[in-house]
Amino acid sequence: MSASEGINRQVLLAARPTGIAQKEHFRIAQGDIVRPGPGEILVRNRFLSVEPAMRGWIADAGNYSDPVPIGSVMRSLAAGEVIESNCPDFQPDDKVTGWLGWQDYATVTPDAIVRKVTEHDLPLSLSLGVLGINGVTALLALTLVGQPQPGETVLVSTAAGAVGSAVGQIAKILGCTTVGIAGGPDKARSCVEQFGYDRAVDYRADNLAGALKAACPDGVNVYFDNVAGRISDTVMPLLANRARVVVCGTASISDWSEWPVGPRVERHLLVKRARMEGFVIFDHADRYQEAVDQLAAWVREGKLAYSEDILDGIDSAPDAIAGLYRGENAGKRLIRL
Amino acid sequence: MSASEGINRQVLLAARPTGIAQKEHFRIAQGDIVRPGPGEILVRNRFLSVEPAMRGWIADAGNYSDPVPIGSVMRSLAAGEVIESNCPDFQPDDKVTGWLGWQDYATVTPDAIVRKVTEHDLPLSLSLGVLGINGVTALLALTLVGQPQPGETVLVSTAAGAVGSAVGQIAKILGCTTVGIAGGPDKARSCVEQFGYDRAVDYRADNLAGALKAACPDGVNVYFDNVAGRISDTVMPLLANRARVVVCGTASISDWSEWPVGPRVERHLLVKRARMEGFVIFDHADRYQEAVDQLAAWVREGKLAYSEDILDGIDSAPDAIAGLYRGENAGKRLIRL
Repeated sequence: MSASEGINRQVLLAARPTGIAQKEHFRIAQGDIVRPGPGEILVRNRFLSVEPAMRGWIADAGNYSDPVPIGSVMRSLAAGEVIESNCPDFQPDDKVTGWLGWQDYATVTPDAIVRKVTEHDLPLSLSLGVLGINGVTALLALTLVGQPQPGETVLVSTAAGAVGSAVGQIAKILGCTTVGIAGGPDKARSCVEQFGYDRAVDYRADNLAGALKAACPDGVNVYFDNVAGRISDTVMPLLANRARVVVCGTASISDWSEWPVGPRVERHLLVKRARMEGFVIFDHADRYQEAVDQLAAWVREGKLAYSEDILDGIDSAPDAIAGLYRGENAGKRLIRL
Repeated sequence: MSASEGINRQVLLAARPTGIAQKEHFRIAQGDIVRPGPGEILVRNRFLSVEPAMRGWIADAGNYSDPVPIGSVMRSLAAGEVIESNCPDFQPDDKVTGWLGWQDYATVTPDAIVRKVTEHDLPLSLSLGVLGINGVTALLALTLVGQPQPGETVLVSTAAGAVGSAVGQIAKILGCTTVGIAGGPDKARSCVEQFGYDRAVDYRADNLAGALKAACPDGVNVYFDNVAGRISDTVMPLLANRARVVVCGTASISDWSEWPVGPRVERHLLVKRARMEGFVIFDHADRYQEAVDQLAAWVREGKLAYSEDILDGIDSAPDAIAGLYRGENAGKRLIRL
């Protein structure tokens, strides 16, 4: 039996959740492998990505992309190899990463491919993490929006996560003092020991405001925010003059269908002449490869550590997003097929 | 009797308010005129400025300058003429504007002077309004932070006010579509008729959200915000992709001692890749004269209209800030001595 005659297991969105997608919002279906038409390629997926941002891709509320339709394959980045190609730009055995969905096999046109993976000396899975959307987001959001200067204090939320852990290390490479915020003593310890943060704060401990102030005695020049909510509210009074807040994610807020309230930010921004700005990686395709090359160089030099949390088998996919929000992963969550 | 032997009437801060300073927080005292020492000048004030931002200069809470001490002359910009000088840079009869305080006479060192007023063809009072902190704030905050592009929609709160009216006209000069928000039908009408806004919205009318959406059908590219609060909350969902929010004032919120809450902004900023940034004019002294020259040219060309609300006599000072927050002024509020 050739690969293109097998079964294609697919994770479909079965119902639209309010809040975070749980196991029951997905179902696994068996489909045929679709032979590639003219200009198309067939990819065998090896790793599926699991992102906090998938919550937003599913939600019906306004977002930066249309919501995944009910009954269709869950939108996802994945990495695998080309097994059949009707497109001159791709050959069998090419490694690729792109919008391949939560399924065993993807039959796609080349615009679904983010890039060919050419760093064959490094694990393919990295193309979904530190050399993928997470690492590239960390590098570009930090440098383009955060604009850290040597000697400045860079504070990072979800500091041990897939994006945050790269942000802290890149800020350190750029000559900054780095402070990580993470949940629980184990993650706080890994910020310092694994990802080289100068200091780490456990947001579950008492007196978060006091701990942050002690960790950032000169104020916060760049706050790289992946969470919003209570943690960020506690950071805002600590902003230094001309601080930059990179709004990269809102992981602590599980539901925007009833719009949440919080302490107003206007006075902080005015008095400190500070800036808050949103960053979405999809706006920066033109800088993607250059960023990957830089990140891969740092990985090879041992300057950029990463952590992976690999689940085995497509059956683990339906509960994988909910698990992220339960905080059960340590590092970039992937599904290995 | 020479001027320097007369009485100097001064408005002193008598008590620190929580919220907006009322009449009873000031008292008027009579002092001697202080003869200028070496390097000092003596200025006869002709116009005293009244700014919404004075609330913040008085407040004990964190701000961009130390709070005015109890018992001292109220901090203020003023305009007048030099009557005695022990400083080679100034001669009697020079017109000046600067940090001269709410008093008849100010004896100061040259660092209190913002600039010599050399546009003798225009009224001296303009040096406190459209050719002063208000106009310069409008021009620099709009261009440096708002960065409006031709064809974009610029929405302005307190659009008929001293800053807002200049913002709308400058945005129009720069080729933008301009929409003003003002309180009541009279001010909304003056936005269009006096200050050339393409459209105006009365925030006191029903269905502010619907009215703003109708006035900004392509979304808001630049929101120049002088108010914060409910009005700004209604604007946030209308931001276009890559919108810029210029945080220039928080006039609608009278008290930050109990920090107010409002709808969270993070999701808007993220999904729209938008930016919010505070602006404080005092950071931009190096661009001040250049901005004044540009504004004066536009005034002379009839492209930049202004409105003044002139109170007579220093006795009107103690109630003047509270009156601003009651919305009783139409245009830049000044006290003529």
